[in-house]
Amino acid sequence: MREINISTRQRTELIDITSRVMSVLKEAGAKSGLCIVYVPHTTAGVIINENADPTVCQDILAGLERIAPLRGDYRHREGNADAHIKSSLVGSSVTVMVEDGRVRMGTWQGIFFCEFDGPRSRRVWVNWIPQPAGAA
Amino acid sequence: MREINISTRQRTELIDITSRVMSVLKEAGAKSGLCIVYVPHTTAGVIINENADPTVCQDILAGLERIAPLRGDYRHREGNADAHIKSSLVGSSVTVMVEDGRVRMGTWQGIFFCEFDGPRSRRVWVNWIPQPAGAA
Amino acid sequence: MREINISTRQRTELIDITSRVMSVLKEAGAKSGLCIVYVPHTTAGVIINENADPTVCQDILAGLERIAPLRGDYRHREGNADAHIKSSLVGSSVTVMVEDGRVRMGTWQGIFFCEFDGPRSRRVWVNWIPQPAGAA
Repeated sequence: MREINISTRQRTELIDITSRVMSVLKEAGAKSGLCIVYVPHTTAGVIINENADPTVCQDILAGLERIAPLRGDYRHREGNADAHIKSSLVGSSVTVMVEDGRVRMGTWQGIFFCEFDGPRSRRVWVNWIPQPAGAA
Repeated sequence: MREINISTRQRTELIDITSRVMSVLKEAGAKSGLCIVYVPHTTAGVIINENADPTVCQDILAGLERIAPLRGDYRHREGNADAHIKSSLVGSSVTVMVEDGRVRMGTWQGIFFCEFDGPRSRRVWVNWIPQPAGAA
Repeated sequence: MREINISTRQRTELIDITSRVMSVLKEAGAKSGLCIVYVPHTTAGVIINENADPTVCQDILAGLERIAPLRGDYRHREGNADAHIKSSLVGSSVTVMVEDGRVRMGTWQGIFFCEFDGPRSRRVWVNWIPQPAGAA
């Protein structure tokens, strides 16, 4: 298991971590298998989406804000109930395939760390399970 | 890794691909382990839900449409910002267990490809990691 | 694969199953690898979120209720269309890392079974794939 450290700058923000995940796999000598990208926080998450046009990220954040607005009738007193809801919706991990030492994704896909209660110092854990020879 | 090709017919549509995933695993001789069903697109996704009553799929699509309507105040200029949001919410992959060469799911569960910006030609990637002997 | 049995008491409810998942892994002698916690139901789900302040769970359930209210203009006639939508949003499984026989999660994270159409008797399946020696 390897860790990626991220410093977020906004309260809500999507940060493309695809190349950092790739680097981790390369350094570790991962070949083929499944890779899990896991966020150990409860007010952040991770998604896979388009890494070409940055307006897509803005729309995703705005869409989540409409679903779970910062200001709302919440019971949790820390002012970040919306972040817990957003985190539950997008999820704490993504699973991607690794082939020949690289993450195999669609042409327009990237892995995005989702900050919902920043700015903060955050961590992402990367782990993978190798594909046994001849299994696929 | 094997690929399933799908031709969608509507802008938004849920397509049951359970039997196709099962066929892929059978052809590949998969026995026991974990299977990941991965969508390499940013305006589509995959879910597990009820495959008995088709009105459930209609309600899920309508529910997502209320959350992220086709027409909205979006910045992305391609007219499919809603599809990116929906894709981020449902996710790009599902993980299921494989036992004795079959996907093991609940009685009413099916695997559904989620088209959010069709009609299009789409792909689904199926991979699995075998359970080593004696591990579970 | 091991099964956890859960009796839910409310229509919608989040139940912390972290210690039960840990027990399953311990009993089975799991060491290191990936663990999948899978819900074989179509009106329930599973998330990872904060297990410290119970108001977080209340806010998450209330947030999902705003997104997919119990009473709505649904086609499915069983009165639980909202539960199918909620289940599709949060997902049917979570994947967590196992190290030294324990689930490795963030400080504040717990695994929560999500009941969206209770009270009912429910099941959760726990499976894991060991990390081969030297792989990470």
